[in-house]
Amino acid sequence: MKRYESLAEEIAQSIRTGVIKLGDRLPSVRQTSTSRGVSPSTVFEAYYLLEARGLIRARERSGYYVISGAKVLPPEPEQSSQALGESTPVDVSQLVFEVLESARTRDVVPFGSAFPSPLLFPLPRLAKSLSSSVQDMDPWSTVDDLTAGNAALRRQIALRYLADGMHVHPDEIVITNGALEALNLCLSAVARPGDCVVIESPTFYAALQALERIGLNAIEVPTHPREGIDLDALATALERHKPKACWIMTNFQNPLGSMMSDERKQALVELLAAHGVPLIEDDVYGELYFGNKRPPSARAFDAKGLVLHCSSFSKCLAPGYRIGWAMPGRYTKDVAHLKLTTTLSTSAPGQAALADYLAKGGYDKHLRQLRHALSVQQSAMMQAVVRYFPRGTKATRPNGGYFLWVELPGQANTLEIHRRALALGISVAPGPMFSAHRGFTNCLRLNYGHPWDAKVEAALATLGRLVAAA
Amino acid sequence: MKRYESLAEEIAQSIRTGVIKLGDRLPSVRQTSTSRGVSPSTVFEAYYLLEARGLIRARERSGYYVISGAKVLPPEPEQSSQALGESTPVDVSQLVFEVLESARTRDVVPFGSAFPSPLLFPLPRLAKSLSSSVQDMDPWSTVDDLTAGNAALRRQIALRYLADGMHVHPDEIVITNGALEALNLCLSAVARPGDCVVIESPTFYAALQALERIGLNAIEVPTHPREGIDLDALATALERHKPKACWIMTNFQNPLGSMMSDERKQALVELLAAHGVPLIEDDVYGELYFGNKRPPSARAFDAKGLVLHCSSFSKCLAPGYRIGWAMPGRYTKDVAHLKLTTTLSTSAPGQAALADYLAKGGYDKHLRQLRHALSVQQSAMMQAVVRYFPRGTKATRPNGGYFLWVELPGQANTLEIHRRALALGISVAPGPMFSAHRGFTNCLRLNYGHPWDAKVEAALATLGRLVAAA
Repeated sequence: MKRYESLAEEIAQSIRTGVIKLGDRLPSVRQTSTSRGVSPSTVFEAYYLLEARGLIRARERSGYYVISGAKVLPPEPEQSSQALGESTPVDVSQLVFEVLESARTRDVVPFGSAFPSPLLFPLPRLAKSLSSSVQDMDPWSTVDDLTAGNAALRRQIALRYLADGMHVHPDEIVITNGALEALNLCLSAVARPGDCVVIESPTFYAALQALERIGLNAIEVPTHPREGIDLDALATALERHKPKACWIMTNFQNPLGSMMSDERKQALVELLAAHGVPLIEDDVYGELYFGNKRPPSARAFDAKGLVLHCSSFSKCLAPGYRIGWAMPGRYTKDVAHLKLTTTLSTSAPGQAALADYLAKGGYDKHLRQLRHALSVQQSAMMQAVVRYFPRGTKATRPNGGYFLWVELPGQANTLEIHRRALALGISVAPGPMFSAHRGFTNCLRLNYGHPWDAKVEAALATLGRLVAAA
Repeated sequence: MKRYESLAEEIAQSIRTGVIKLGDRLPSVRQTSTSRGVSPSTVFEAYYLLEARGLIRARERSGYYVISGAKVLPPEPEQSSQALGESTPVDVSQLVFEVLESARTRDVVPFGSAFPSPLLFPLPRLAKSLSSSVQDMDPWSTVDDLTAGNAALRRQIALRYLADGMHVHPDEIVITNGALEALNLCLSAVARPGDCVVIESPTFYAALQALERIGLNAIEVPTHPREGIDLDALATALERHKPKACWIMTNFQNPLGSMMSDERKQALVELLAAHGVPLIEDDVYGELYFGNKRPPSARAFDAKGLVLHCSSFSKCLAPGYRIGWAMPGRYTKDVAHLKLTTTLSTSAPGQAALADYLAKGGYDKHLRQLRHALSVQQSAMMQAVVRYFPRGTKATRPNGGYFLWVELPGQANTLEIHRRALALGISVAPGPMFSAHRGFTNCLRLNYGHPWDAKVEAALATLGRLVAAA
């Protein structure tokens, strides 16, 4: 741990234990530098880190203030026992379509949205990369880059993994139309209609839709709001159902925000390898961590080529470009062939633009800003949930991503709340969207990926009233 | 018929009947203007049309010369009786992958390629549209345009259909990652694993791969090299197999180049409607006609919403952009939902660029140049086939597109010829790629979508020697 990190940890500890309270002003950078005997830049970095974690916030010409503390956070939900552990045919698509369609206009306050605000992305900078790269584009690249995708982009992606300590060869990467296509192709590569597939409970609804479309049965395994999928329950499911694949979001799971620890990731990979079951790893939120470094993916622990790792630039750099990728391990050729027969290849200009952007630098700086914005917004939403939601409301405390999973007290019906909120111009993602058996009726996923302002605060207050009335 | 069209037809007739012979110089524009009593511009347009059809060619400062004639064309193949009329499981993907992969390097003379030369497209002009449209792009469009695609682009596509006399509402259009995704989504919308689907014989191999991937059975219906699918055989197949869909390329079919007449298209639509069978219409080559006007699509005759029409810009404007579309009639919502759950949405920058390009004009001019280039190249290839291929070789005479279907005499094995040609740096598409039962072993598809030059001519001569030796 670097000096600034340990300093930040000490201060965070003081906040957690109530030594420094909500609203307190921290000592100035100069004061702390003197009192601790460290350089001002170390203090500055520590404060920056605490701000990124949503614990303090700078006020112009006034200093840093504590904006969070253990006492003002809503309690965390427990692991749900709603997962049945049975093999279930899936029929949830229609509900998902209705919810997504209803929330699509930009007038609605998008707590139910799956996307962060497009204003958080460096779109003008990407436009420049697009212009310059397309002018230099070799006409023959459209043929050369079939089907795996732009070679320069695949190299840049491999380089980023390398920087995080994971060795990937560009030839293992297949560029796709967003992570969604990558995940779908990987699933098709390993499972046939009628097969069973393990998913988390609750899970990202696109996994449910994919299972439903292909005609697969879901085995929903309970997933802890902080620690991720329950490995004991998974072991039982593997014995009992002999699934053909396991689809898991290892980092900042959608909708829970859970992150598996390194140890649990390793145990997951080993457990699945022992059963010869491929892991489809959805890691689209891995770059959106609020901690000190990128959490590894399960792929980093894979020695057998059984992890089909999927990610994209849609959540962290270029929404709308629809550029994702799969690293399907031993299934690379199968996935490439499936890609060839379904969409042939991914749009060339967007790929060239991202390759150019990544090569020129600036991505890490953008990511730091994005993570900071998200963590500040998370903090604001957590405070607002405490302020406006009824007593007994629980909420996750994700250390990354842009979703809060909220468990409402009593017999709240979030499908009904979703309808009432929508009538007032507010969208939410009701719990039953995230489960094959339409459970989690008392849960909501709230998106904090949009800049916090008075309108958003008022919408959350309204939502709190609806919840209290329900 | 306009004056210049009838003049062109008269001259074409003279060429066909041998009154004007191969190599003859046509009277000058001025002479013909005087002798026929028409304006010079009418003569010029007639000559331009004849050139577009590959019958004459201008030589600088010398005039127009006949470069084609009935006597020098290879005879046309008959309708094949190789289609079995049985329901067949499909297992041809691996062969297709091998052939495509082997022909992917740009050093190979690409007679086996599925694409025209990228040099035939206005890539610099598209790059400009890309730069300007992406700079003006509304960040929220990435959300607004989910899932159906860029509204301005859908409007431009609808306008083009309108100009050709077909009324389409932009909301009926779903933008896809090329026509391939459109076709696959349409197929998934109407057929489930185990169902039967009618395809042409020979057919585009992507149809075979789609059937194979989904687990559908193929009913191959004989298709005439000039007139398209045999409607009597189709009627029998409909009675006998109760297929769930029919996948047909109505204009300049790949690989035959056949085009269904208006009457046959109408009869096709009515026959299928009588059986309640949806028609998946692949019309990606419709704009590449060599005649006077765009041939209508089967969709133009559809009153019941049973035609799922698919097309793209990949063959006629922007290869590599992967922008296609589906107009799925009564299945529009189903196809949009399938799109949402498989690839979510199509890359935004490419869509915006094409919308800008189409709005600013220039597309029709580009298309005229492209059609002209293709027809000239077709003529050159036909001549070369006569010159270099053994007696008894037959070839189609497509009135559009960029494929020649060649039937070799005797017991030629085109899989073997493909391997030998590849060793010499020449790719071809062997007949068995185009059939579920791997028939058409004595046939080749040759691509004339690349500018003709001495190297290409020499490669065709080499290929002719291989064929003769086989």
